[in-house]
Amino acid sequence: MRSVEWHDAKVRMIDQRLLPAEFRLVDYDDYRDVVQAIRAMVIRGAPAIGAAAGFGMALAARQSQSHDRDSLLADLRVAGDALCAARPTAVNLSWAVARLLRRAEAEPDAATIPGALLAEAQALADEDVEINKRLGAHGAALIRDGDTILHHCNTGALATVDYGTALGVIRTAHEQGKQVHVLVDETRPRLQGARLTAWELQQESIPFTLIADNAAGHFMRTGQVDIVMVGADRVAANGDVANKIGTYKLAVVAQANGIPFYPCVPTSTVDLSLPTGDDISIEEREAEEVTGITYQGRPAVPEGVEVANPAFDVTPHQYVTGIVTENGIAYPPFDVSLRRIMEHDDGI
Amino acid sequence: MRSVEWHDAKVRMIDQRLLPAEFRLVDYDDYRDVVQAIRAMVIRGAPAIGAAAGFGMALAARQSQSHDRDSLLADLRVAGDALCAARPTAVNLSWAVARLLRRAEAEPDAATIPGALLAEAQALADEDVEINKRLGAHGAALIRDGDTILHHCNTGALATVDYGTALGVIRTAHEQGKQVHVLVDETRPRLQGARLTAWELQQESIPFTLIADNAAGHFMRTGQVDIVMVGADRVAANGDVANKIGTYKLAVVAQANGIPFYPCVPTSTVDLSLPTGDDISIEEREAEEVTGITYQGRPAVPEGVEVANPAFDVTPHQYVTGIVTENGIAYPPFDVSLRRIMEHDDGI
Repeated sequence: MRSVEWHDAKVRMIDQRLLPAEFRLVDYDDYRDVVQAIRAMVIRGAPAIGAAAGFGMALAARQSQSHDRDSLLADLRVAGDALCAARPTAVNLSWAVARLLRRAEAEPDAATIPGALLAEAQALADEDVEINKRLGAHGAALIRDGDTILHHCNTGALATVDYGTALGVIRTAHEQGKQVHVLVDETRPRLQGARLTAWELQQESIPFTLIADNAAGHFMRTGQVDIVMVGADRVAANGDVANKIGTYKLAVVAQANGIPFYPCVPTSTVDLSLPTGDDISIEEREAEEVTGITYQGRPAVPEGVEVANPAFDVTPHQYVTGIVTENGIAYPPFDVSLRRIMEHDDGI
Repeated sequence: MRSVEWHDAKVRMIDQRLLPAEFRLVDYDDYRDVVQAIRAMVIRGAPAIGAAAGFGMALAARQSQSHDRDSLLADLRVAGDALCAARPTAVNLSWAVARLLRRAEAEPDAATIPGALLAEAQALADEDVEINKRLGAHGAALIRDGDTILHHCNTGALATVDYGTALGVIRTAHEQGKQVHVLVDETRPRLQGARLTAWELQQESIPFTLIADNAAGHFMRTGQVDIVMVGADRVAANGDVANKIGTYKLAVVAQANGIPFYPCVPTSTVDLSLPTGDDISIEEREAEEVTGITYQGRPAVPEGVEVANPAFDVTPHQYVTGIVTENGIAYPPFDVSLRRIMEHDDGI
């Protein structure tokens, strides 16, 4: 089962909000419901929401009542804007929407656009899986037999269409027979590490230990971490990396301890139009993500508390050892290496 | 109401495990229940558990069936060992027990020991409040009008007998009329920031914003934090600081951003017998602290997951700007300044 796929003229997703307690599939036949699902994080992870946006565009083409090409293209642009606005930080949304719009514009006639967009969305999703496997092969070369890998958030099959980025690298190393151990940050506030990464690693029988995010520094300082691997939601042209909140602290502490720090991303996450990470919009999410937990069965936060809840942070490139992509690993200076890697498949 | 006090021949504590949902007082008339209360974190915070251990020794003296001095002292040493073993990291436990044992040994006769120990435990508790106010005055000089202070765990009235260490500093600055804003780390796994610090700051009407621990780096990097203030559970002779898990990451990231980092401690937390923080025992607590949360009403962790849960970490002295005590602020080189500050009241 993929995190998102086309099924019986609908977009089918795993509702990731319910995991690990419940595995439930949801079907959408209206692109506006896909927008809402992305916003509510039924599906999350930069590559996965890119694929979901692709299928959302395919739905929008089928839903449109416009019979002439220009009107249909206008409807698709409206749908594309709504999909891009669902979440601001991951660039994969706008990358996928732009790709689907280009495909629509290439069709000479309105009648063929819905079919063309479904084929394109399917291709995008299929490519994501293939890209992750190439990415995994490049990244696995960084992992030695016996390594402990510190991992933040979820970058696995659920965060992509299937297989995963940073977790895909770990999976590849495991499949190569290397003994690996994953230190899993629980990843407050939404606990994607505890809820999703732990669940995926259990299913893959990859050994891991779950920790509170606060404990990661202790394990790094005491020599119990060999490498840090994370995903990313947007990489700027200079190598600055926006990723799940908490990533920045990990990267700074990794460098202080001489531990390499590698974001693992498909090239669709690299945004060469942004010179630096300062230009990346950081999504502020609702307070309830922080306050909506119980501890030992009791409310953990007093009523009426003011909360700040930025969903992402930016790690400046000087803390980034290398960026693993499906085309190879980019090393500093990133303004040169990322540009090359976007142009040359595997040739870097 | 103090976090711990002598009431009607019993030791009375606020059960901090239930806050903020419920304010409940518990009374103990057996020192072994005080041991268990410290272990279970009914009461926590290095100065508070020191005071609790003092009252525990007073209880043990009353409980003893021994009528000769040597037998009573032997009973007290057994009780002292049990109290010290309740939690391994904070030095205040053994500091308080040693103080009470010295007082007992100074009594010429068994009959006067119970009364002497109660007086000594009372004095220790009263001094803790007075020490915190002196500590607060020294530390408040570091806080400028308009500052935002990043704070980890709970170091307030609940973590001490009353008033607080780092939160006592913030309280003093607030009482001096300075506009302060506190960025409150929720402090997983036990959420002492969300549960206790937020509750105390609400009661004091000190403005604050609650954040997931992962967000602290973002606020430091984007210039929204002026100073970091924390407590500590043990300070080694070289200035290495053991404190609540997650403190080390804060200190490293603070330094990377040029933000001063100040542990605030009574001198009873300074352990000159330990050359470095490497010699500090780090308590490993039960997995349930990590796994026992729900997120949006559902279990957040799959069944059968391996968990690591170190309760403290060590921040090497090179990340410590200064150490605020009731006798003044120690600055590097700490091996010199801490020794001086332990000897000279306010004279440093």
